[in-house]
Amino acid sequence: MDTTPRAVTRLIEEFHRLPGIGPKTAQRLTFYLLRAPKEQAQALSEALAHLKERITTCAICANIAEENPCAICRDDGRDRSIVCIVEEPLDVLAIERTREYHGLYHVLHGAISPVEGIGPDDLKVDELLQRIKHNPGIMELVLATNPNVEGEATAMYLERLIKPLGIRMTRLARGLPMGGDLEYADEITLTRALEGRREV
Amino acid sequence: MDTTPRAVTRLIEEFHRLPGIGPKTAQRLTFYLLRAPKEQAQALSEALAHLKERITTCAICANIAEENPCAICRDDGRDRSIVCIVEEPLDVLAIERTREYHGLYHVLHGAISPVEGIGPDDLKVDELLQRIKHNPGIMELVLATNPNVEGEATAMYLERLIKPLGIRMTRLARGLPMGGDLEYADEITLTRALEGRREV
Repeated sequence: MDTTPRAVTRLIEEFHRLPGIGPKTAQRLTFYLLRAPKEQAQALSEALAHLKERITTCAICANIAEENPCAICRDDGRDRSIVCIVEEPLDVLAIERTREYHGLYHVLHGAISPVEGIGPDDLKVDELLQRIKHNPGIMELVLATNPNVEGEATAMYLERLIKPLGIRMTRLARGLPMGGDLEYADEITLTRALEGRREV
Repeated sequence: MDTTPRAVTRLIEEFHRLPGIGPKTAQRLTFYLLRAPKEQAQALSEALAHLKERITTCAICANIAEENPCAICRDDGRDRSIVCIVEEPLDVLAIERTREYHGLYHVLHGAISPVEGIGPDDLKVDELLQRIKHNPGIMELVLATNPNVEGEATAMYLERLIKPLGIRMTRLARGLPMGGDLEYADEITLTRALEGRREV
């Protein structure tokens, strides 16, 4: 493949380093940009260059932000009595999209995973405790970690750690996903759906 | 979603403009780079910036290249009597990977497509004719356009145009793909495989 220009193979390599981008996709993207107007590659290049420069971490909720504190923590329209605890900034985006949650957030930046050697000290857990201590107005914590082993372990850990402080703690409901098919639901999801069944 | 930093939404948008990258993947890639070391976003940014700057088109074969003529056209070890005609630079890469072809190439930069309004004048067809005229050493042209409607139309057009010049013209074999299952082969592929059957 030494017949391919270095600038081309380099971009293929860099695309390939991204998660979920295989060698074929990396090639396809590179050759697409070669044919596209120069402006498109340039715009992507600049967006990448600015990504880290202009992004900071909110000192209150640890979410990524342009300003510190972040737009959500500064917003007077939000309910300051409820804090939703999530693993990643991407989870904040997902919950914001529902337009149904109007409280604040706390981003842990990960989940407890003994396999990967990630413990509570690697997460924004101490920051959460400090935040609770200094904000007696916080009445409820919504545990919104991922519905997988690490997420469940993290939620359990936080529950044991914080419940003694007398704050109400809730978890997102587990059950059948909308649009899904009961027939194809796995046993654990179905078990959770049964456990969480409601009177109609 | 106005709670998301502009630098983040901008990168998501730019990733999303790439073919085959949906909004979810664009988001995932962006947040991956936010967590990755600054160097990775920087390296991708630079590779993109250099892509167009350092790339030119070979005046002989129309392939993308770092120098003009390209590395393949300059290589004395290649068989100059045979030219493989492909639609895109990506096809050159694919054929080079086989390590079984040692001739030269001619990149058409597309295929004839009346639907999209692409005719022979939009492709490097005239350049191909000139090349044949000025290089009497060319003994064989391998038509390696894509096995789809546009590719077949292009190959047919070139066959009618060039055959009268008395040059040997061949086409890549059509048949069952290796590793495939006869049961799942479509009728056209199976028809081609039957037509191209060989004595054993």
